[in-house]
Amino acid sequence: MTSTGASEVPVGLGALSTTNRTAHHRLRQQGRTGRADLMAVLQAGFIAHLGVPAEHGVMVVPTVYGFDADHIYVHGSVASQSLAAGPSADYCLTITVVDGLVLARSVFEHAVNYRSAMIYAKPRIVSERAEKLSALRLVAEHLAPGQWDYARQPSKKELAATRLLALALDEASVKVRSGPPDDADSPDAALGLWAGELPLDSRWLAPVPDPSLPSGIVPPQHIAAMSGRRANAR
Amino acid sequence: MTSTGASEVPVGLGALSTTNRTAHHRLRQQGRTGRADLMAVLQAGFIAHLGVPAEHGVMVVPTVYGFDADHIYVHGSVASQSLAAGPSADYCLTITVVDGLVLARSVFEHAVNYRSAMIYAKPRIVSERAEKLSALRLVAEHLAPGQWDYARQPSKKELAATRLLALALDEASVKVRSGPPDDADSPDAALGLWAGELPLDSRWLAPVPDPSLPSGIVPPQHIAAMSGRRANAR
Repeated sequence: MTSTGASEVPVGLGALSTTNRTAHHRLRQQGRTGRADLMAVLQAGFIAHLGVPAEHGVMVVPTVYGFDADHIYVHGSVASQSLAAGPSADYCLTITVVDGLVLARSVFEHAVNYRSAMIYAKPRIVSERAEKLSALRLVAEHLAPGQWDYARQPSKKELAATRLLALALDEASVKVRSGPPDDADSPDAALGLWAGELPLDSRWLAPVPDPSLPSGIVPPQHIAAMSGRRANAR
Repeated sequence: MTSTGASEVPVGLGALSTTNRTAHHRLRQQGRTGRADLMAVLQAGFIAHLGVPAEHGVMVVPTVYGFDADHIYVHGSVASQSLAAGPSADYCLTITVVDGLVLARSVFEHAVNYRSAMIYAKPRIVSERAEKLSALRLVAEHLAPGQWDYARQPSKKELAATRLLALALDEASVKVRSGPPDDADSPDAALGLWAGELPLDSRWLAPVPDPSLPSGIVPPQHIAAMSGRRANAR
């Protein structure tokens, strides 16, 4: 992912699998090939962008997610409509964690330090009650560990109203860029310009109570402990 | 966008235009209808997710962007391949800025505070030299204002190697969620559980020099000034 260099759009790279769309076609040095690399990106992120085939093209929907070793789970209201229409094309779910801006000597070499995962799968609607509960738990616990046991868990009616999609983690590509710009060895180094990275830091602040909350109810320990913690930790 | 409540997947809402896919179908209270709302989201974000129709479904590609009153510009290497294949379907470009987690009394009412824009358009490949330069400038200046004039600007060869797409800002929907959870008036309020928001703060840290940089070259003022600044400001 770059600001200006056309040669660094992160697509089809960092193959974990060997299908054409996840194989390394460009910028191979940014590709990662291990399953652990995929898990690390899923763990670090908390917003995914789900690409859904739609009537006249594509929709890209932001969503939270949860995951285990085999699946990633997202909400599926939109997809349900699309899926109801017939057999499905592949979806793509992308998670991107931004670590900083890469400021090079030339505009062309500007880039972003990031970690990203692209998952390709045919979505499956989660219909079985136990898997629905387990998937919702994975989502809640990924966002705020401890919250599933603390909050009121879904009623039968709420569970029935919840549409969830499972995507298998079988076909994915992971890409990571880190470190300084790439033009230290180029003629541009002689320009005497500053170059480096501007790191991005994302942190949870102190919890803000609902104004309707009666006095005397304090945040539970697992929420209080998140405050000050990095939201995009490695 | 919610963690667990199926009723809040942010799709097709917040219409700026009146096409079916951008009209308010669900969660109308989160929709925004003004052009200024769209511009505010574009200004606050700096990573977009581009949905590209692909052979077997969809690809979702993270990318930086720049924009003016009429267009948003992104890199288009992938899209170029896809576009070369023939007349194009619509693309969708989504920008999501996350402001915090919404921790409700019930798991079902958990949500995310966020601002998002979904732009639908048939992409146009930018081929004219002046528009390419102007688009690259918009991208660079959106990421780090001042950097276009500071860094070495693109050479003829670099410009020729750069693939850029323009998407018109004619059809878009904007959604915003902010504030406390929605279950203060529900029977769950009697549970005595803490509820509120966990705000997310994203800031640029101090610039880290490229280790190859000769000593004595300090960051330019426009970069030094970014340090400590919010990356997702309202």
